[in-house]
Amino acid sequence: MASPSKSAAVLNPAFKLSRTKSKKKHFVQQKVEVLRVSDPVLSVFMWGINHTVNDLSQVPVPVMLLPDDFKASSKIKVNNHLFNKENLPGHFKFKEYCPQVFRNLRERFGIEDHDYQVSLARSPPIKDSNSQEDRLLLTSYDHTLIIKQISSEEVEDMHHILSEYHQHIVTCHGITLLPQFLGMYRVTVDNEDTYLTVTRNMFSHRLIIHRKYDLKGSLVSREASDKEKVKELPTFKDMDFRNNMQRIWISDEEKEKVMDKLNRDVEFLVHLKIMDYSLLLGIHDMERAEREEEEDYGESPCEEEEEPENGVSTGSPAAGSLSTSPEGIAGYMSSQKPFGPGEFDPYVDVYAIQSAAGAPQREVYFMGLINILTHYDTKKKAAHAAKAVKHGVSQSGRFQPQPLVPRGNDTRKQGVGVKIRNGIGPILADRQRCSLTVKYHQHCYELSHTSGQNKLIK
Amino acid sequence: MASPSKSAAVLNPAFKLSRTKSKKKHFVQQKVEVLRVSDPVLSVFMWGINHTVNDLSQVPVPVMLLPDDFKASSKIKVNNHLFNKENLPGHFKFKEYCPQVFRNLRERFGIEDHDYQVSLARSPPIKDSNSQEDRLLLTSYDHTLIIKQISSEEVEDMHHILSEYHQHIVTCHGITLLPQFLGMYRVTVDNEDTYLTVTRNMFSHRLIIHRKYDLKGSLVSREASDKEKVKELPTFKDMDFRNNMQRIWISDEEKEKVMDKLNRDVEFLVHLKIMDYSLLLGIHDMERAEREEEEDYGESPCEEEEEPENGVSTGSPAAGSLSTSPEGIAGYMSSQKPFGPGEFDPYVDVYAIQSAAGAPQREVYFMGLINILTHYDTKKKAAHAAKAVKHGVSQSGRFQPQPLVPRGNDTRKQGVGVKIRNGIGPILADRQRCSLTVKYHQHCYELSHTSGQNKLIK
Repeated sequence: MASPSKSAAVLNPAFKLSRTKSKKKHFVQQKVEVLRVSDPVLSVFMWGINHTVNDLSQVPVPVMLLPDDFKASSKIKVNNHLFNKENLPGHFKFKEYCPQVFRNLRERFGIEDHDYQVSLARSPPIKDSNSQEDRLLLTSYDHTLIIKQISSEEVEDMHHILSEYHQHIVTCHGITLLPQFLGMYRVTVDNEDTYLTVTRNMFSHRLIIHRKYDLKGSLVSREASDKEKVKELPTFKDMDFRNNMQRIWISDEEKEKVMDKLNRDVEFLVHLKIMDYSLLLGIHDMERAEREEEEDYGESPCEEEEEPENGVSTGSPAAGSLSTSPEGIAGYMSSQKPFGPGEFDPYVDVYAIQSAAGAPQREVYFMGLINILTHYDTKKKAAHAAKAVKHGVSQSGRFQPQPLVPRGNDTRKQGVGVKIRNGIGPILADRQRCSLTVKYHQHCYELSHTSGQNKLIK
Repeated sequence: MASPSKSAAVLNPAFKLSRTKSKKKHFVQQKVEVLRVSDPVLSVFMWGINHTVNDLSQVPVPVMLLPDDFKASSKIKVNNHLFNKENLPGHFKFKEYCPQVFRNLRERFGIEDHDYQVSLARSPPIKDSNSQEDRLLLTSYDHTLIIKQISSEEVEDMHHILSEYHQHIVTCHGITLLPQFLGMYRVTVDNEDTYLTVTRNMFSHRLIIHRKYDLKGSLVSREASDKEKVKELPTFKDMDFRNNMQRIWISDEEKEKVMDKLNRDVEFLVHLKIMDYSLLLGIHDMERAEREEEEDYGESPCEEEEEPENGVSTGSPAAGSLSTSPEGIAGYMSSQKPFGPGEFDPYVDVYAIQSAAGAPQREVYFMGLINILTHYDTKKKAAHAAKAVKHGVSQSGRFQPQPLVPRGNDTRKQGVGVKIRNGIGPILADRQRCSLTVKYHQHCYELSHTSGQNKLIK
């Protein structure tokens, strides 16, 4: 994976210079766009982001974070009388958790607060196609950020892990496959609380994802349903990965980088006894993108001119090359020359890896660990109990993971391997111990799994 | 008085062009300066200004103001837990009255919301030397705005007059000697309410005022006390005006403009039955300013370099030429060539009038009507009752003013005249009818007054 400090110049030598030079200029010339959002929770969320970022800009950055900062919060309650009724509920509350901590994290992840604010609040976020009825899942209008509804128990979880998460991010200099937590909020409308986290989008804000996997390192009930498979962009699972004979073609250098990150991150998750996370994998097929772009261009040559000026996309990730706002997290990109097919900005698409030169497929991979906050709530417990009965796995609330399997060349260890070609070792999910772990190796392994007994095939 | 639409180019031909061109640019390069204010009411006020201006920038400007806008308000309540304790109380409330109306007024007075915000909230306002113990009177750090504490009754008064005041400002295209009301707020700290209005400073933000009068058109108890007279800048009154043989030297053209404004404004005040206001007069003596500047320069040649970068003045209006911030209402001035002695920017110093060419005194006059909200509260009623007993004036709560005296050339009318030389008519205060009114005339009159019987001397 391209590290921000190294690869920017590789893809676009002018990038670093021009970022410093031109990024800030168009901020002023930009007019304030007035928001009109129909969903009151969403409109309060956007209001709250605007408010808290502005507010925080007036608060000094502490020399160092103190234990109190991890328990801090800022609550605001608004009562508007005959004012701004068109855009906001008359009464609402907004709470920001640990403002100083998340500001520090945003800084460590290279996200400026003003860009964060613009990406979230200039135009309404878009509902994700995977959004469940009862849980919001949104993408910022510029596709750089993910807004996810969580439970109050997960808010508690976050408070439990936040200090160690922050320490981990400090240690790894922000280079991680973990979710980049950028903010946590509570929105209250009509006395109903909605808890939300904001993370960086693990997929690209402009390259279309053509295939997507959610991998846990288990084959038990890990296949996309028929209903899922007919979607425009289904979320495939471990079983589909095997059945599709999916391969990932990256260079030795990229492999080493991604494995280093995975090792560090999984060690951190095991230390925190977190285990229900997934490896999210998105694949951008450059040839298909080029083909589709040509087709689109042939069909509607005037499309570019018809696009709205503020660059808000229609929200469908399959609707052709996504246009971006001239501001926000991906803002400075638009002031650069347009990116070529498959090119990406490693400052923005930090989870992206380009396929190795000479690989049979020209692809871009997006890999990260998701759902690290997933709480074992009642529903999940019940689902797990059902699985446990079927497969004989112990069930006692939360699993207590054992110490990690020794890393190194011990290839006989049981686990689920995600096959990565081109001289790349496997990503192993040690499911027997109920925690996704990672093994780095010189050899290629095929994904294989039987309940309770994983099989590795060289 | 110089009208914004005409006189800018007279004083500085490059002004208008460069205002449009360069005003906005340095906004971006400006770093956010973190506020540290010791007074909790003041710090909440600054927080509230920041908040409401930011918030309002997200609210659409209505096609036209509706009756509801004159009753509207926006209330916000903040509870910070372990957050930002150094700068703000943990719990406070902030209320903005009629946000849309005051935004509209700011626009009509040519004040951009961002500049308003910077002038009020970038650095703490400065306590005015005339600030009473129980009532805050502050000047914004860049000396362009006045923040004045008012009573809850005066808030009520404002609500009563706001619609007609707004109509008056529309009619006169913002060209007025009345206070320019730019905002009204309530700050609540420790369950104690503080009501505040923001108006444009009637004096200059950079030219030092050397003499100051508060004129009501009456000589009864209208003399500065001995205690007042020894102050650095005493507030003289009508009696002192006469005793000082004060003259105002302005051209016929300026005279006509100021009389037009006064006529319109006083008519409006009479219509609203408002009468306890004053004519505020400030005088900048150009020769004295030049002399003092030379002296200052001789004493401390390095002074300019020692000044703090953000340009916050020491707060004393007599401490030499005032430095200004590169932003805020007077912001674009600093990007221009420095103004010469006695020069002012008629966009900023809208109440200023330069002495006529060839006048015996080279001066700049600042004239406006103040205290139009002054409520007849208990204290004032008592004071008035005392006066009434002494001088035989009727006292029955509020005065009911009679119809205005006929305007025109009737110079025999009783009243108090502020003498304006150089072919200029008097500003007359018809005290007999207890309302300050204005007469325009070809002749010069000397200030003269006897209780109940005003005498005009040609």
